[in-house]
Amino acid sequence: MKKILIQLDTDPLPSSFDRVVAVDAGADEIFSYGGVTPANVEPLVHGAIFTRGPGDLKNTAIWVGGSDVEAGEAVFEKVGKTFFGPMRVSTMADSNGSNTTAAAAVLAAKKHVDLAGQRALVLGATGPVGLRAAQLLALEGAEVVVTSRSLDRAEAAASRVVAAVPEARIVPTSEAPVDALADAVVLIAAGAAGVQFLSAADWSDRPRLQVAIDLNAVPPLGIDGIAVTDKAAETHGTIVYGAIGVGGAKMKLHRAAVASLFESNDRVLDTESIYRLGESL
Amino acid sequence: MKKILIQLDTDPLPSSFDRVVAVDAGADEIFSYGGVTPANVEPLVHGAIFTRGPGDLKNTAIWVGGSDVEAGEAVFEKVGKTFFGPMRVSTMADSNGSNTTAAAAVLAAKKHVDLAGQRALVLGATGPVGLRAAQLLALEGAEVVVTSRSLDRAEAAASRVVAAVPEARIVPTSEAPVDALADAVVLIAAGAAGVQFLSAADWSDRPRLQVAIDLNAVPPLGIDGIAVTDKAAETHGTIVYGAIGVGGAKMKLHRAAVASLFESNDRVLDTESIYRLGESL
Amino acid sequence: MKKILIQLDTDPLPSSFDRVVAVDAGADEIFSYGGVTPANVEPLVHGAIFTRGPGDLKNTAIWVGGSDVEAGEAVFEKVGKTFFGPMRVSTMADSNGSNTTAAAAVLAAKKHVDLAGQRALVLGATGPVGLRAAQLLALEGAEVVVTSRSLDRAEAAASRVVAAVPEARIVPTSEAPVDALADAVVLIAAGAAGVQFLSAADWSDRPRLQVAIDLNAVPPLGIDGIAVTDKAAETHGTIVYGAIGVGGAKMKLHRAAVASLFESNDRVLDTESIYRLGESL
Repeated sequence: MKKILIQLDTDPLPSSFDRVVAVDAGADEIFSYGGVTPANVEPLVHGAIFTRGPGDLKNTAIWVGGSDVEAGEAVFEKVGKTFFGPMRVSTMADSNGSNTTAAAAVLAAKKHVDLAGQRALVLGATGPVGLRAAQLLALEGAEVVVTSRSLDRAEAAASRVVAAVPEARIVPTSEAPVDALADAVVLIAAGAAGVQFLSAADWSDRPRLQVAIDLNAVPPLGIDGIAVTDKAAETHGTIVYGAIGVGGAKMKLHRAAVASLFESNDRVLDTESIYRLGESL
Repeated sequence: MKKILIQLDTDPLPSSFDRVVAVDAGADEIFSYGGVTPANVEPLVHGAIFTRGPGDLKNTAIWVGGSDVEAGEAVFEKVGKTFFGPMRVSTMADSNGSNTTAAAAVLAAKKHVDLAGQRALVLGATGPVGLRAAQLLALEGAEVVVTSRSLDRAEAAASRVVAAVPEARIVPTSEAPVDALADAVVLIAAGAAGVQFLSAADWSDRPRLQVAIDLNAVPPLGIDGIAVTDKAAETHGTIVYGAIGVGGAKMKLHRAAVASLFESNDRVLDTESIYRLGESL
Repeated sequence: MKKILIQLDTDPLPSSFDRVVAVDAGADEIFSYGGVTPANVEPLVHGAIFTRGPGDLKNTAIWVGGSDVEAGEAVFEKVGKTFFGPMRVSTMADSNGSNTTAAAAVLAAKKHVDLAGQRALVLGATGPVGLRAAQLLALEGAEVVVTSRSLDRAEAAASRVVAAVPEARIVPTSEAPVDALADAVVLIAAGAAGVQFLSAADWSDRPRLQVAIDLNAVPPLGIDGIAVTDKAAETHGTIVYGAIGVGGAKMKLHRAAVASLFESNDRVLDTESIYRLGESL
């Protein structure tokens, strides 16, 4: 029986990135839908759960993606509510690769630093990947500074992290990145393509900074002085990773997560469970 | 040569149900289109008939689906008119599974009752499945009562059945289901999810009622007292089927119908021919 | 590793024609997108180039199609600009089959006539196929007459050809086809379905006319007296081809072009390179 992944994407054009990875993860067929909302998703879920016998439902799974994390969460929640009893399939949420990328970044940082109690700075924390990175750093017990040019948006991001991790210690700020960097031990930049947060001088003399990760793959990168291919390289006394340096682990986790959807019909892969899967790889 | 099914769906998001079944029926590739209308379907049909040699055209087929039976019929008719001479592929119409579900339901009833001359009640007859069930019951010679809260809509449904089966005896009514049930020997409920037509008491003391079928798969069901998994179970002296109880035969017919599209390039599977295929299984 | 073709189509519903040919050309997976514009294509390209290792990128390719040649060119150009360094995949532009069809038609004419210096008439030259045919005839050194009922549109088409082939000799005209045909040695009709440019009498006594090709596959054809299946047939002393007669070579070239995309990650197949590939087959 063929393994079918139903890709539910909140953007008008469903992500080609997610489709390629799904193919490489072993899905035999991918049904790609764009423009998916809580209002139109129900028949798509019914089509997943009413077409194969209970013993075969593990061969169908649902993927929720798109560039908007909140829109994805709303669809993901609606999908879960549409299931009933044993009529369910495994599901994964990874809007814009946010969960897998954030997990790979935080796991990379954790290789070098015990995160509990440490100060971590997330630049671009209002975006899909930054928000998840902040959540996972908080889960590891770090104190997380989240920045935005708008304090309101930084505070909104902080509230979203606390909603997911009630014990989180989050510091929202509209300070410039170079100022917010003070005392940070871990730095993750997860901004939009083309946004440079820090010049090389901004971070080259920071003895406390142990790990700096830039998740932007398209030049100019968010942290000048990190190369896209850096992978645990040492620069100015700091361990650095670029997007491709983190990308290997991200892709491995992304593929493993998709593959694991087909092991049972009741797996629910969200930010934390994807992170836990990443720890086990 | 790969077997390609071109799914033409009149809804914005093409049915995932139909796609899963097409995969399981052996289609190698499924091209899924949403928002298909008579106005935009022509180039999609040309792509089907002008890409493979005459001897290979049996490996391409067209499926017309969606939640709106009338919209599907209009697309199906336009597809047929776009073919010319030997430049054609096999086609099937099954908006919302209406033909396959209705066929499976009527075939289930026919196992227990000789339908000719019997009174049958279809609840939800203005919907896609109910309309086809009424048509097939009429084809078997039953007198069919079709209900709607609006008499106009019931009469419109009756007219559509008569257009397909000129000799049909149809009784449109806006009576409450419990009243319309009087004297019925066969009852098929094909309403929208969440609509309950009859309480258990409404039908538990009906000695004339021999078969009751509820095609709703999502609780609450349309006929209280029938379980979704009932399959020829006896309740209050009536043989009952729930959606999953009929579903096995429906899925078998659905898959067989899709598979049969690839046996030649000129098959036309509509309500009646799908029913005849179901009889032969 | 599966070969993935990402179909970027500028029409709302991506071409089924291009999808069938892609399947038959050996693409394992086809990701079909409709409504693609320069404004929304970037993330689709990123998904192509950031998901597989550099050595594996030859297994992903991008196809640009749709009914509007100019819209397709704009997407094709944007795709090329989104690549950087080795982060690229092979790409092909063939809006409405224009490049492959035009190449097959001009190659058919070239079998019978040395085109250099000859007068060629393209009817329907403002459409996707006609424009490319005019470009390729110009590339071979022919003097090309391009017609439209509107002189402005004929002149615009001529300008587009000259932009691609600076040395082209193009004569735009709004003359009726029967008048424009005077002195032409080669005639290619590439009009819209249902448009008849010439009656049988219009071209049956033209001793100079050596080759006449009608690319319309749906009756009535553009040149009365040519049959859709004609392939190097002789009629009134002229060698004639119909759409199906040219179609065999077009389909062979179309499939070969798609297959060649997967030989490296940096192939760029546009009008001229598709024509050169056709010459080599």
